[in-house]
Amino acid sequence: MDKTKILLAHGSGGRLTHDLITKHLVQSLSNPLLNKLDDAAVFESKGKTAFTTDSYVVNPIFFPGGNIGKLAVCGTVNDLSVMGAIPKYLSLAFIIEEGLDISALEEIIKSIAAAAKEAGVEIVTGDTKVVNTGKADKIFINTAGVGFIPEGLDISGANARPDDAVIVSGTMGDHGIAIMAQREGLNFKTAVESDCAPLNGLITDMLKVCPRIHVMRDPTRGGLATTLNEIAGQSQVGIELNEESIPVKPAVGGACEALGLDPLYVANEGKIIAIMPEKDAPAVLSAMKAHPYGKDSAIIGRVISPNPGRVSIRTPLGALRILDMQSGELLPRIC
Amino acid sequence: MDKTKILLAHGSGGRLTHDLITKHLVQSLSNPLLNKLDDAAVFESKGKTAFTTDSYVVNPIFFPGGNIGKLAVCGTVNDLSVMGAIPKYLSLAFIIEEGLDISALEEIIKSIAAAAKEAGVEIVTGDTKVVNTGKADKIFINTAGVGFIPEGLDISGANARPDDAVIVSGTMGDHGIAIMAQREGLNFKTAVESDCAPLNGLITDMLKVCPRIHVMRDPTRGGLATTLNEIAGQSQVGIELNEESIPVKPAVGGACEALGLDPLYVANEGKIIAIMPEKDAPAVLSAMKAHPYGKDSAIIGRVISPNPGRVSIRTPLGALRILDMQSGELLPRIC
Repeated sequence: MDKTKILLAHGSGGRLTHDLITKHLVQSLSNPLLNKLDDAAVFESKGKTAFTTDSYVVNPIFFPGGNIGKLAVCGTVNDLSVMGAIPKYLSLAFIIEEGLDISALEEIIKSIAAAAKEAGVEIVTGDTKVVNTGKADKIFINTAGVGFIPEGLDISGANARPDDAVIVSGTMGDHGIAIMAQREGLNFKTAVESDCAPLNGLITDMLKVCPRIHVMRDPTRGGLATTLNEIAGQSQVGIELNEESIPVKPAVGGACEALGLDPLYVANEGKIIAIMPEKDAPAVLSAMKAHPYGKDSAIIGRVISPNPGRVSIRTPLGALRILDMQSGELLPRIC
Repeated sequence: MDKTKILLAHGSGGRLTHDLITKHLVQSLSNPLLNKLDDAAVFESKGKTAFTTDSYVVNPIFFPGGNIGKLAVCGTVNDLSVMGAIPKYLSLAFIIEEGLDISALEEIIKSIAAAAKEAGVEIVTGDTKVVNTGKADKIFINTAGVGFIPEGLDISGANARPDDAVIVSGTMGDHGIAIMAQREGLNFKTAVESDCAPLNGLITDMLKVCPRIHVMRDPTRGGLATTLNEIAGQSQVGIELNEESIPVKPAVGGACEALGLDPLYVANEGKIIAIMPEKDAPAVLSAMKAHPYGKDSAIIGRVISPNPGRVSIRTPLGALRILDMQSGELLPRIC
């Protein structure tokens, strides 16, 4: 029995599962709710509650700027935060391929603990399954999250209104290009790191300045273009972007050119789109720029009445082109 | 492009993901919260809230008595219910292997919808990832769940007290043997079906008769023996069972003998263990027997002070043997 590897028995529900949970998980993620090890965590809640889930299948599991564990915490924290919720409780479920190095799992759990600490959330319930070699790819993680929405907020993808301003919190495509570069063994002059980060702090600062924000969304899979298309569809409005104002790191832009990708379709894991009344945009923008995760924020376009459901983009030469939803799969397993 | 199969692009976050979600998922599982398709579902909550998660990796994905979709709903409904919670909202996250038949996914979603309807829960948020052929095994499902605990209940694995009675709600090992038989191509004279079922209705009936129930737990992976060991450890009590009183279907007992398994270590997906003051046991037992999912309920033992953390079992010949926690992995991917 190789004690450095995950075995099928770690997922049996028996002794080794118990040891794995008590030794590795409860120790690193310790909190009173988790430590009870009941079939469900129990806490008090009140008022508008947000609930979300995401599975993470990113390949490779370690990448510049993070790993699958950090991603699994940040992604779910961000999905709650963009609804205006203050994230509180996360569940954590592993599907592990037999043979994974226990040291890799430990490093992932350490990142989960660090990201949860930064975001101020607790991992309160979980599950571990192990499947035979070749039946998964190292490790898949699911997190679900619960958060509470303060009174007076009404944020939804369906709330964009004509003349609203569209802001992004920083450069587009960093996460996707960091993953692609690692996966394909590409080398850039300037290393590209994933932007993977918990955005609840940034969002709290934004809502302090303007509780009237209409829409927030994190442009993950499918990138900015796909997310804006979803919003345009949900709100039945048009969205017009100004290409020159969209922040893209030179290294990311260069990599996209080399790979034949458009950075507006490449995934981000630490960025948000915010849509709000135009008059509120300057105050929100300066609050965002004052936060480390929002320093490259920019107003990139506006909501319009014509062409409901459609996103268009004005090129530097003044032409207007349609920015459609992504149709194929350019970057599988990016998150 | 083969339109009968799941493609990588179904997990891209782009057009095909959008179509898959709106056509297959939202249509079958439709409810106002899910239909908003925001990054998180938002609902009102109040008071003691239970939150749990499980991933399902069962192989085969279709089996006598159910499939992975039904299992994913029932398992999470049951984990909430055994805490005394009334299950309300579920998340649903798929990890799909490229090439899965869309018709199989449709059948799984139909079962999810049916099980959710029976349990009275709504699927309110979800996620779909697709990984390349050979990087997962057909489909893995994660559900997380939220439920609300009525005032006055205090149910936990840590609450077993000496002299409490131990009841199980029916025959042991049905689910595990149904899966094994299907997987290994075994034939029995009497077909064994999985007991997979949502138990919130049964549990509501039990709590009506006796809100003082100390512990409830569903004996899934690791079976009755492992679950009772966990309870004995959490509550720091001994548990003594009477082997003759533990219900086991003859076909399951026979299969276990042939396969060299002990039914007390084989997984169940539609059974509960309940531990309560001895004086309440007869009333709870008759409430259980009156429910279709509890008709074979039986008092199988009692909680004792000596040997805290240990489970022992009295054999038909009067000998007392230790019933340890499962140590290896007898039945991988049983749930």
